[in-house]
Amino acid sequence: MNMQEATSKMKADSYKMAALSEDTRNNILAHVKDALIAHKDEIFAANAKDMAAAEENGIAASVKKRLKFDEHKLADVTNGINELIKLADPVGQIQLKRELDEGLVLQRVSCPIGVIGIIFEARPDALVQISSLCIKSGNCAVLKGGKETANTNKALFDVIYSTAVANGAPEGCMLQASQHNEIDELLSCNKSVDLLIPRGSNAFVQYIMNNTKIPVMGHADGICHTYIDKDADIDKAIPIIIDAKTQYTAACNSTETLLIHRDVADEMLPAIARSLKDHGVKLRGTAEAAEIIKRAYTTDGQTNGSHTKAATDSQNDFEIMGDDDFNTEYLDLILSVKIVNDVQEAIAHINHFGSHHTDCIVTENADTAALFMQLVDSAGVYQNCSTRFADGFRYGFGAEVGISTSKIHARGPVGLEGLVTYKYKLYGHGQIVDDYATGKKQFHFKNL
Amino acid sequence: MNMQEATSKMKADSYKMAALSEDTRNNILAHVKDALIAHKDEIFAANAKDMAAAEENGIAASVKKRLKFDEHKLADVTNGINELIKLADPVGQIQLKRELDEGLVLQRVSCPIGVIGIIFEARPDALVQISSLCIKSGNCAVLKGGKETANTNKALFDVIYSTAVANGAPEGCMLQASQHNEIDELLSCNKSVDLLIPRGSNAFVQYIMNNTKIPVMGHADGICHTYIDKDADIDKAIPIIIDAKTQYTAACNSTETLLIHRDVADEMLPAIARSLKDHGVKLRGTAEAAEIIKRAYTTDGQTNGSHTKAATDSQNDFEIMGDDDFNTEYLDLILSVKIVNDVQEAIAHINHFGSHHTDCIVTENADTAALFMQLVDSAGVYQNCSTRFADGFRYGFGAEVGISTSKIHARGPVGLEGLVTYKYKLYGHGQIVDDYATGKKQFHFKNL
Repeated sequence: MNMQEATSKMKADSYKMAALSEDTRNNILAHVKDALIAHKDEIFAANAKDMAAAEENGIAASVKKRLKFDEHKLADVTNGINELIKLADPVGQIQLKRELDEGLVLQRVSCPIGVIGIIFEARPDALVQISSLCIKSGNCAVLKGGKETANTNKALFDVIYSTAVANGAPEGCMLQASQHNEIDELLSCNKSVDLLIPRGSNAFVQYIMNNTKIPVMGHADGICHTYIDKDADIDKAIPIIIDAKTQYTAACNSTETLLIHRDVADEMLPAIARSLKDHGVKLRGTAEAAEIIKRAYTTDGQTNGSHTKAATDSQNDFEIMGDDDFNTEYLDLILSVKIVNDVQEAIAHINHFGSHHTDCIVTENADTAALFMQLVDSAGVYQNCSTRFADGFRYGFGAEVGISTSKIHARGPVGLEGLVTYKYKLYGHGQIVDDYATGKKQFHFKNL
Repeated sequence: MNMQEATSKMKADSYKMAALSEDTRNNILAHVKDALIAHKDEIFAANAKDMAAAEENGIAASVKKRLKFDEHKLADVTNGINELIKLADPVGQIQLKRELDEGLVLQRVSCPIGVIGIIFEARPDALVQISSLCIKSGNCAVLKGGKETANTNKALFDVIYSTAVANGAPEGCMLQASQHNEIDELLSCNKSVDLLIPRGSNAFVQYIMNNTKIPVMGHADGICHTYIDKDADIDKAIPIIIDAKTQYTAACNSTETLLIHRDVADEMLPAIARSLKDHGVKLRGTAEAAEIIKRAYTTDGQTNGSHTKAATDSQNDFEIMGDDDFNTEYLDLILSVKIVNDVQEAIAHINHFGSHHTDCIVTENADTAALFMQLVDSAGVYQNCSTRFADGFRYGFGAEVGISTSKIHARGPVGLEGLVTYKYKLYGHGQIVDDYATGKKQFHFKNL
């Protein structure tokens, strides 16, 4: 069966999936949790194959850590399923109840989206999380994980799928795509697939967005900013920028650009630059930022009694970049630096060069913060905390299917709420529009 | 200035537009209302030109009625603006307030989408409604109306735009596109335009959807169904189907297909068919539906004492169509008819052939209705009332920017709520993620 046929069959089954009761969906999740534990030896054995292949292919240790699926990761995902079971049902929520006229009642009720295609990175725990979220929200899912964890994914999928079907889910509830060419096939299934959620590199997500008629939810890049205002508290600014840049450099919510108010640049930038250097961060930026940072590094050198060495270091450590070169997502220990005249310039810079993901102002001035948070056009606008907080778990959503920088549908970290839509149910007793058009009857609109 | 430059400038101004206070936006609307009345002579004169051109081009009377902008239409739109001013502010609503940890507070706040491109039919009142909705919701708008009302649109736009700017809106708040080729230019402005709302023919909306990277909200077609269940009350069924088909045939929410349960087809279909015939509706459908309807027409003929004429009529009035030919949107006094074995077949037919717009079941059986309304995958699912109710005004939204059949973002009739998104605001005091990652601190997630 090709992808067109498979998703078309899934579409037909999506109505059955959407009709499963909350109890049935939570019961499936409970059985999935037990089955994952019961089949852990097969899953770990499959993961051992993936790990051996990773070893052979010389994959970096940091990446291998993500590929690994062991007792610890199993405990994480089963705990996650327990939490998910406890979350309120996202389906069947009555969002509006209004009597339009006597005996004519309108309800807006949340319901599953239908068929969702999710393409995610090589992380076996992601497969469990995503499929659990889809079960909880009554959606059918096409799952395509990274090839580096193909064996683990297959083992996990087989357990989850067979358990779901054995406990009441329709046959077309889930489908695993394992071949890379199936991604292109999936992109053409706009008649059957309601939403695509791609996770991965900028280039990959851009490719998805540019090659399908299916709505796409996600983000291509994360060019996040931290702006140090003239009213910043330096004792907050330094830990925030260090965390935002270095806590996990590969994350989309890491800060890529530091903006600093001109009035405090001379005073604060040297200390910030030295601290960043201590954490292994290389700086790039405008010529005027370079001047201040070079002095900081030089002073640093002098303190250590080695002026000449520090001067050389500072040339290696700081690269001057043009004003129009602030749209790079480093995902590495590199940070762009720019001095701005005021908060307005910071806002304009962020709206122009940013990716509308998450941006922070460090300031003690509530008015400046309010202005920044209103005018910066991003999914997350922060005062005095690290941009790394942009995450569904940290927001208390229990789980996250991805982060969206779109303004349509869900924005920011997307939990269960982003996996449902709604429908309007209208209950009448023979009412016709002509009676209202001719003025024979009038609407009275009473919210119930 | 071309469309790329114009929308790029508009994008920069959209942050100012988004920051206008509720008072400023409502004040602009109040002034717009007064200005339309003050400038009514110029507007009516411009409309006279459009009406004269319509006369010259032999445009149908029914269409001319929509082009006309007179005292009556002016009163409608100014009343509409008054109602809009009274509606709750869609911007700045706090949708979620949660303490993640002590001194770390998350808020989800509604905000304007930004720049919206709206392409609408030749109806001058639509220009006023749409621009008012965008002002109320703090959005910038590119407006492209039908060419048949170009003079009226220009006069209306000039009044609205100059009044908005004079009362605090930024220069880039609104832009009128008047040339058809500007639509294609607009489609390429995905860097500046956040959302497109096309209204018009199926082919036109499909064209928009297939030729832009900008998210599109709307509906290409409206293939709505009315299903007469075995437990239907015939006294409700007949007025409902007559209204759903004939009250305004050109509307997207008119019923295009009548489905009827086999158990009651013999009993109910003849009466329904005769009533539809009396209202000038031509029927098409499956061979078995034809058999029943021909008998109805013949009986009808016999009653009138003219058997032969009726038999001939029935051949002209009923066209047999294949089972796979139910995907036509007639927008005319034509109705497809099919007999189904049960509600499940009706649901499957609607989900397969429908456009997920609005579909109705006529039944006195609450369980059957519940099943239908859960499983039919449409923006509107109705029991015992006309599909023509699918409309923002009739739902009590005060105004409508369009109807969406998408499941992403707004679905069904879209009022102000569909013109806003949200952002997450996070207020901290120097919090960093590393403290939570290392277990030094824990989130406690308290909704405030």
